[in-house]
Amino acid sequence: MATLTYLTTTHFDFGAIAQLPAELENAGITKAFIATDAGLVAAGLVETVTNALGNAIQYSVYDGTPGNPTEEAVKEALEQYTQQGCDGVVALGGGSSMDLGKAVALLAGSGGPLAQYDPLEGGAKLIKSVAPVIAVPTTAGTGSEVSVGFVIILEDGRKMTFASPLFIPKAAICDPELTMGLPAGMTAATGMDAITHCIEAFLTPNVNPPAEGVALDGLWRGWQYLPAAVKDGQDREARWQMMMCSTEGALSFIKGLGAVHAMSHAAGRIRRLNLHHGTLNAVFLPAVLRFNASECEEKYVRLRQAMGLEPGADLAEAITRMNEEIGLPPGLRAMGIEDDDIPGLITYAMQDLSARSNPRPASEEDFEMMIRESL
Amino acid sequence: MATLTYLTTTHFDFGAIAQLPAELENAGITKAFIATDAGLVAAGLVETVTNALGNAIQYSVYDGTPGNPTEEAVKEALEQYTQQGCDGVVALGGGSSMDLGKAVALLAGSGGPLAQYDPLEGGAKLIKSVAPVIAVPTTAGTGSEVSVGFVIILEDGRKMTFASPLFIPKAAICDPELTMGLPAGMTAATGMDAITHCIEAFLTPNVNPPAEGVALDGLWRGWQYLPAAVKDGQDREARWQMMMCSTEGALSFIKGLGAVHAMSHAAGRIRRLNLHHGTLNAVFLPAVLRFNASECEEKYVRLRQAMGLEPGADLAEAITRMNEEIGLPPGLRAMGIEDDDIPGLITYAMQDLSARSNPRPASEEDFEMMIRESL
Repeated sequence: MATLTYLTTTHFDFGAIAQLPAELENAGITKAFIATDAGLVAAGLVETVTNALGNAIQYSVYDGTPGNPTEEAVKEALEQYTQQGCDGVVALGGGSSMDLGKAVALLAGSGGPLAQYDPLEGGAKLIKSVAPVIAVPTTAGTGSEVSVGFVIILEDGRKMTFASPLFIPKAAICDPELTMGLPAGMTAATGMDAITHCIEAFLTPNVNPPAEGVALDGLWRGWQYLPAAVKDGQDREARWQMMMCSTEGALSFIKGLGAVHAMSHAAGRIRRLNLHHGTLNAVFLPAVLRFNASECEEKYVRLRQAMGLEPGADLAEAITRMNEEIGLPPGLRAMGIEDDDIPGLITYAMQDLSARSNPRPASEEDFEMMIRESL
Repeated sequence: MATLTYLTTTHFDFGAIAQLPAELENAGITKAFIATDAGLVAAGLVETVTNALGNAIQYSVYDGTPGNPTEEAVKEALEQYTQQGCDGVVALGGGSSMDLGKAVALLAGSGGPLAQYDPLEGGAKLIKSVAPVIAVPTTAGTGSEVSVGFVIILEDGRKMTFASPLFIPKAAICDPELTMGLPAGMTAATGMDAITHCIEAFLTPNVNPPAEGVALDGLWRGWQYLPAAVKDGQDREARWQMMMCSTEGALSFIKGLGAVHAMSHAAGRIRRLNLHHGTLNAVFLPAVLRFNASECEEKYVRLRQAMGLEPGADLAEAITRMNEEIGLPPGLRAMGIEDDDIPGLITYAMQDLSARSNPRPASEEDFEMMIRESL
């Protein structure tokens, strides 16, 4: 039984940030907790947003979000939220800030600890309420602004995906202007995150044709415009299209994701490396496309069309060429992953929520093969 | 500024009708007004639905919905709704019953007359509330179960499109089982309605890429499966895919529609003929595809891909061939339209809401040309 539920109200265009005060008012937020990171303060984006707020709405800025957000950071942020008397969250940044903001909203509404909400253990039923979140992405990749999920590294070391329709932000404000200053490397890594979302969501066997259509449209845009966005960050058309690809990627992954994300989550929890999720997706994607090929013949035809490839073209090779063109690393070793990391990667990938919706079930041996192919 | 708002919860599969009692409870409906038509009573579908209701929920059946629903019928139905103390609507049927059900819900919540809610005159602002509607389609075409609109022939003769997010049903129950008995002619006509929705919604220049993706996915399904559904009404896969095409068509036309619908609405209001909306769409579509071609080069490439046509194939010809294959009339004359009807068609098409979102603006002369090409 497919249950198709569509999502949040999204204001999407250059200048959309002007909609923020109205959306805070709609959400009943009088004192906003701005969840962000120090880099965005330095880049002046936090100021852009607080300027847009005007005088009507008070706020408190938390800029301590780490690259892969941790439960410790969530607890620190929650303390500030409570002490400052905030009544809602503006999640401002890339996936990390938006994920941290969503986690704070969950704990503010329903109390801790986070681990009790593990969706694999039926934890979604324990959610009482979630404080309102308005999401303002500053990268084009995660799409967390319209997604049902967020990911936090727990104190016990697990990198856990939380998922519930209650985690969908009340509104998303997608202003490509906020991505114009993103450096080429981050543009490439986040862009491949969005493209991976579109591809993995399209491929999962869960039944949701509208989400598949959204995924293919996002892929069509992202595949055309990512090289241009990396080459010239001031290319406004490319920035708009990449942000749309990102939003569509997350609108589509309500269907689920797959083995790429299972392995990226497993690798993202290695603290000594603090690897970028989008870069990991880009590096794992070719091996997973080869692994899934036997189960996805008809869908690969449609992927090739969306990517403008010739009939029968090798999808994995196309991804490898794209990674090279936009300057992403050729494999896991170049990112610091060592042979000793592999057993842990396999264990955590097998346990990951996304592993369950891969089109071809993957055993430990399969994951080992895909990881070794990605080295 | 694109504002992307997605839609209703849809239960979609064979057997989905079992979800009806739970959705009525979710919507707070204790006595349901079942808006339907005499044909569905005769076909036993009303009994299928009342059997699914069980004992917990009372209901009152209105089976007087005409083929193109009129304001008179809406008023008659509203009287029954009020007298019977109903507190919500089950809109059961094709587009006509669903549209009538939505109109009753609007008047029950906000009072009459209907004409004051004309969206072209800012009437949406006058809506105070709308009684809850659960939509249960029995054809695969209109998609009204997930759409923001409904169409009623007013007492003054206008065929008016009403549109507001408030008109989206609280839930849609899409059970392809309910379409298994649909005769070949109605399967063809409603199927081309769905396909036209996908094509026109994709082509309107309004900005909503997710809706475009949904439109292309719906077209991909409908174009493959419509001949099979017409040929063998018991083909369950074809029935499932056509119902999905229909739902996706309406999910996508939140973007808007175009000149096909402007002319179909104009022709649908000719009372002596009482023409089927889907058949009209099928007959007008080739001329509109020729008219729009100069503005839609890139989009036509994607339409051809979704329809499995060769690069550069003539889209209008492909539609004409499909109409022939599935037994639809070759033109307006075969449906009873005469030369004397043409001035009225032009006048009403020019005034129609859908005319405003056609990719190429159409003048009176343009509409006359398209109508004459469709004769």
